[in-house]
Amino acid sequence: MPEFKEMLADRVKETEEIIKRYLPEEAGFQRTIMKAMNYSMNAGGKRIRPLLMLETGRLFGFGGARKELEHFMAAIEMIHTSSLIHDDLPCMDNDEYRRGKKSTWAAFGEDMGVLAGDALIVEAFSVASDAFSGTEHPYRVGQAVRILAEKTGIYGMIGGQVVDVELTNQPVPADKLDFIYRLKTGALLEASMLIGAVLAGAEEEDCGKISRIALNVGLAFQIQDDILDVMGDPELLGKPVGSDERNAKTTFVTLKGLDEAREEVKRLSEEAISQLHSLNREDTFLEQLIRMLITREK
Amino acid sequence: MPEFKEMLADRVKETEEIIKRYLPEEAGFQRTIMKAMNYSMNAGGKRIRPLLMLETGRLFGFGGARKELEHFMAAIEMIHTSSLIHDDLPCMDNDEYRRGKKSTWAAFGEDMGVLAGDALIVEAFSVASDAFSGTEHPYRVGQAVRILAEKTGIYGMIGGQVVDVELTNQPVPADKLDFIYRLKTGALLEASMLIGAVLAGAEEEDCGKISRIALNVGLAFQIQDDILDVMGDPELLGKPVGSDERNAKTTFVTLKGLDEAREEVKRLSEEAISQLHSLNREDTFLEQLIRMLITREK
Repeated sequence: MPEFKEMLADRVKETEEIIKRYLPEEAGFQRTIMKAMNYSMNAGGKRIRPLLMLETGRLFGFGGARKELEHFMAAIEMIHTSSLIHDDLPCMDNDEYRRGKKSTWAAFGEDMGVLAGDALIVEAFSVASDAFSGTEHPYRVGQAVRILAEKTGIYGMIGGQVVDVELTNQPVPADKLDFIYRLKTGALLEASMLIGAVLAGAEEEDCGKISRIALNVGLAFQIQDDILDVMGDPELLGKPVGSDERNAKTTFVTLKGLDEAREEVKRLSEEAISQLHSLNREDTFLEQLIRMLITREK
Repeated sequence: MPEFKEMLADRVKETEEIIKRYLPEEAGFQRTIMKAMNYSMNAGGKRIRPLLMLETGRLFGFGGARKELEHFMAAIEMIHTSSLIHDDLPCMDNDEYRRGKKSTWAAFGEDMGVLAGDALIVEAFSVASDAFSGTEHPYRVGQAVRILAEKTGIYGMIGGQVVDVELTNQPVPADKLDFIYRLKTGALLEASMLIGAVLAGAEEEDCGKISRIALNVGLAFQIQDDILDVMGDPELLGKPVGSDERNAKTTFVTLKGLDEAREEVKRLSEEAISQLHSLNREDTFLEQLIRMLITREK
């Protein structure tokens, strides 16, 4: 499907350009922190979250809030990046490299690693709340800030990280694994799509559907990750496979086996696509994007 | 002035009760992080920031946004507490104790120390943006969220921390010391008073005055801290004096001497009080509160 690939390349480029506009200028006595933030934000990455936000906004025709949406696209990528920076810290996963480059703390020092993560969380809310300036939709923007905060915090991404960290090197029961997947990976994907819908003025029922679609996509995405760690091509992935088994890590695959994992990915995807179609909107690109995210081989 | 002391005790109690209402319930798989957050939020402290916010809101008669203000009182204390948690980390100041209790990372582990600080930053914006729910003043709330983010981030508190961390164990030139004082201490005090004024619907000119008052108070507060480290009574302070000299730390006193420090505190206070009076409002309690903060002996 070469047409989709070209469109995707265009949309990713559009997303990159939007994010870049909201990065801080490296100036002033505190410029080290701006450098550390920009280093991390420009370290590559698939930009899945802002892209899903953009495409969900587009699905609902943007509702006169396209500029506001762009603020939140940058904000959600900042939140995601902050979590990677802190995950890599010596007291967390102790990773010196990420995507082939030194991780933020390894490049700027551990203290700057802590502060750069903090700074990106705050900058996310700064950029998001700047969307109030001149908006005609203050309640939508307010609702979007609430979603961003709720899905990032203890009832979202950070809540999932906490349980994940506490269970390091321990077997994880199925209910807690589901909790981790829903919160650590799922919550920000849900925020991405839901903010896109809310800012565009989508109706409550449609927002509910979008939430369910996003949670399915998040779960399927994570289970596909587990499958790839067993079955993936190390060259395509750019990293060795089998790390979960070596680290005795509990995953959906170790708990339920490969066959059930594949079936679950299929079930979750079909449910997501069927919900998407039920919105009765022009969804060709978003459907293909979701299929690509879930069935990816890298 | 026994009357002020009684009023102050009442207002601090009121502030404590408001903050308590916004703390997370310790429940769910992720309850460890709620425990760590509440441990840090209940570890004592003078509640200066939410108290200044409350009293600035009162100065302008609250403007029909008293409930919204309470959200932000909890939020600003969460931001302040998050900065203490991360400051204490081994890779930052490496403090095992704070106010006679184990610091958060020492009590809950270093990984939970990082995550509890992150969680409190996000929870601050969650609690703040919940003020949108049912408000009649969405633009004021939006403006308050913007101020909170700006004064917390790289152009506020975190910007000051970065420069402070970079200059550890180095002589600090006067312009950078001023920068650190204005941002690390001053910015959150400014946010506290400014948010109080903005939520109450104060006019732009009055908001400008409030900003200048708060910055003066912040600078005077910090310089008084430096004076107390030389001249203070260790029993009243509850900690040894002379630590700045022992650590070869640059302060206003080491740069300019005690006499100039005292004169600067006096000058800043008088300017702050004169600006306060120029607002022509019932400011007796707020004036006394500011005087107490600046001329404190502990």
